[in-house]
Amino acid sequence: MELTHINEEGRARMVDVSTKEETLREAVAFSRVYMKRETLERIREGTIKKGDVLSVAQVAGIMGAKNTSHIIPMCHPIFISGCDLIFKMNFEMCCIDITATVKNTGQTGVEMEAMTAVSVAALTVYDMCKAVDREMIISDVMLLRKRGGKSGVFERKG
Amino acid sequence: MELTHINEEGRARMVDVSTKEETLREAVAFSRVYMKRETLERIREGTIKKGDVLSVAQVAGIMGAKNTSHIIPMCHPIFISGCDLIFKMNFEMCCIDITATVKNTGQTGVEMEAMTAVSVAALTVYDMCKAVDREMIISDVMLLRKRGGKSGVFERKG
Amino acid sequence: MELTHINEEGRARMVDVSTKEETLREAVAFSRVYMKRETLERIREGTIKKGDVLSVAQVAGIMGAKNTSHIIPMCHPIFISGCDLIFKMNFEMCCIDITATVKNTGQTGVEMEAMTAVSVAALTVYDMCKAVDREMIISDVMLLRKRGGKSGVFERKG
Amino acid sequence: MELTHINEEGRARMVDVSTKEETLREAVAFSRVYMKRETLERIREGTIKKGDVLSVAQVAGIMGAKNTSHIIPMCHPIFISGCDLIFKMNFEMCCIDITATVKNTGQTGVEMEAMTAVSVAALTVYDMCKAVDREMIISDVMLLRKRGGKSGVFERKG
Amino acid sequence: MELTHINEEGRARMVDVSTKEETLREAVAFSRVYMKRETLERIREGTIKKGDVLSVAQVAGIMGAKNTSHIIPMCHPIFISGCDLIFKMNFEMCCIDITATVKNTGQTGVEMEAMTAVSVAALTVYDMCKAVDREMIISDVMLLRKRGGKSGVFERKG
Amino acid sequence: MELTHINEEGRARMVDVSTKEETLREAVAFSRVYMKRETLERIREGTIKKGDVLSVAQVAGIMGAKNTSHIIPMCHPIFISGCDLIFKMNFEMCCIDITATVKNTGQTGVEMEAMTAVSVAALTVYDMCKAVDREMIISDVMLLRKRGGKSGVFERKG
Repeated sequence: MELTHINEEGRARMVDVSTKEETLREAVAFSRVYMKRETLERIREGTIKKGDVLSVAQVAGIMGAKNTSHIIPMCHPIFISGCDLIFKMNFEMCCIDITATVKNTGQTGVEMEAMTAVSVAALTVYDMCKAVDREMIISDVMLLRKRGGKSGVFERKG
Repeated sequence: MELTHINEEGRARMVDVSTKEETLREAVAFSRVYMKRETLERIREGTIKKGDVLSVAQVAGIMGAKNTSHIIPMCHPIFISGCDLIFKMNFEMCCIDITATVKNTGQTGVEMEAMTAVSVAALTVYDMCKAVDREMIISDVMLLRKRGGKSGVFERKG
Repeated sequence: MELTHINEEGRARMVDVSTKEETLREAVAFSRVYMKRETLERIREGTIKKGDVLSVAQVAGIMGAKNTSHIIPMCHPIFISGCDLIFKMNFEMCCIDITATVKNTGQTGVEMEAMTAVSVAALTVYDMCKAVDREMIISDVMLLRKRGGKSGVFERKG
Repeated sequence: MELTHINEEGRARMVDVSTKEETLREAVAFSRVYMKRETLERIREGTIKKGDVLSVAQVAGIMGAKNTSHIIPMCHPIFISGCDLIFKMNFEMCCIDITATVKNTGQTGVEMEAMTAVSVAALTVYDMCKAVDREMIISDVMLLRKRGGKSGVFERKG
Repeated sequence: MELTHINEEGRARMVDVSTKEETLREAVAFSRVYMKRETLERIREGTIKKGDVLSVAQVAGIMGAKNTSHIIPMCHPIFISGCDLIFKMNFEMCCIDITATVKNTGQTGVEMEAMTAVSVAALTVYDMCKAVDREMIISDVMLLRKRGGKSGVFERKG
Repeated sequence: MELTHINEEGRARMVDVSTKEETLREAVAFSRVYMKRETLERIREGTIKKGDVLSVAQVAGIMGAKNTSHIIPMCHPIFISGCDLIFKMNFEMCCIDITATVKNTGQTGVEMEAMTAVSVAALTVYDMCKAVDREMIISDVMLLRKRGGKSGVFERKG
């Protein structure tokens, strides 16, 4: 009989976490959106035609965090117990810095939820402003900190 | 009578495109994921525990493109007529470069679909590899090209 | 350096519930759909072209309860352990009264799940019948009762 | 042979609109949220803990409009070409009035999209404020106007 | 410079249909659920605890058809202009036969929408009845007919 | 007063599981896709135009498992702690056999998640190959095994 077994050797799986213990977990992620100085000023003045950029981006980021397991294929579904985004407009470097903090109690962490939150918030900034600035760049999407779980505390250096 | 009218002055709206003409549109976006050399090698060798990183990231990016209007609040729903992602592993710079091309025929363009595709693909690379490399950085998410629609061709310089 | 800190002062967040205790919770919500007497009769007789109105509305309400955290931006994702909707046709007042009971065990309550269930069920009644009655009104969407959690029992008067 | 044919006689279907012509369509819907005077004042002052109520409700309403065909079972999927919500705070009657205008070009109308937008926006107001006011009531959810399509203009009286 | 180009040679893409013409399309798919005679009788009598099996399965099938492009990764998003499911209870063979007809006007067909509709309807039958019959089998999921598009009419033999 | 009470007697509900205990649960489901020998060979050779069939099907199956409670109306939302799919190409019988194992710790089991995973994976195989083989049949979708929960171990015979 001709049989070709597939998997074992490299195809995707959602790894089993059923024996991991439930702990309080927190992750903080970061993203940055570079733009023209004029775009940044219009965001501050609230004169972007599609509306108040940062309040829409904030809602988008939080909803993105909740959608993470539907967006990222091998991500476990998770209960988020809290999500907060902070935006800083930096006129010197002409960028907006976005930080997301996500918390949960569970068997897997919330790194991806925080990473997704800052990415979706940054994409929303792009969408709201693209009519006036197509050359914006989303950059430095990274994990700043996490704690909880077997691997313990992670703190990004420098 | 005490009435406070809200909107007009800055809240979000999904702008009306009903008088725009239907044209063939195309957008190409880019993202880059920096990682340790060892991580890149494990991706190439197919020894990441969660599975074949790039084939999962590719599916994720395409599904992300289709989900764009649910992820980005002020984005119009749209029919995507084609979506293709290309991954390049760059061992010199220790990064993976992701390019997404999205096409449609419609009243609005597909820039956000392409931007979302490369972001979701990059986040998926992060998710698949984060157990071995938490310090990966997603960077240079940007629009490379678009054509179609009133604003015509956009080509990023440099 | 020019920096503008945003948040703290009024932007949206999903409040942190990670220190709240898990308790058994229940919420009961209500909605009412006013319609023409003839419409109500056609629902009872099962002669609405789109199908059996109340059985579709019931499925819609239950699925709406499960979708609540994707529909309501600052709502926590939650595990619903039970959901039941009851419909009463009131021929005297020419309306359908909808009651939804939702249960869960968790750190946050299910008020929004119950409120969303009765709203979605009412909207579905509207959708199924709008070809024969565009003037239907959805009204009295409110929380009747809740129990469980720190704030304890709430019972609506009157 | 024992066969029981089901359907024809009353089960749900998504009615065939494939022979209807594509026209420009518009629908305007309304909802009202009654609340305590104190709640209304806190919304105006921006002192609700979960954030700026109306800007979150506006984003929720627009995303709700885009989600309509996933929320309402027999609703056709549709391209929305524009969506705008307006909120009026009425201190005399202690309520917030919500109006949503939705446009599209297609074979079916956007009544349900407008009705869903005002319902989801109202539910979001409830969610944002329920910690200080559980007795809010959502009321008068109705279609104000529609035009386009075979049935032409509908204008609600009084 | 060390570069490894990936794609071209076998990774997934959503094929470009932007040059295909819009035509009226229709697809009919089939599925069958085998079960114990007693289960079939309880469905007919309406004594399954979770509710009226076939009316829930019908709503599920229609919503499944609308969700197809979110469930099947390489499937194009599509406007369904009509969807109808028919259930036949066959007491001789102890099974329920499900047929779904889906229509649209577009650049790609609706085979996958019809196939998804009958699969989701069959899974719903399983879910509603599994407490009394875990050994049900879903079988014969296939395309019966399609028309429209470049490949023209397909009619399954036998 | 004319009142017609509806429910109790047969409409759908999501049954209350709030008093069931949390246990570790596992379910294994199966599906089979019959196809032409040539189609099977093209899958093995990787010459299907839409891409690598089995790796896309695997991602689809896992995402389908996570989406189960949104696809199946009366299904409880659930945390999946692991999901793995295995594909076997059978050249003798000209079919692909799909097995999905899903785990969770919760108040309800994961039978539907496993059944949905194998169904969605099979539908994805169909979608990827339908351009070369419209006559494929999905068959034998069934539960092989489950354990955990009040009803204990279930093992399908023969």
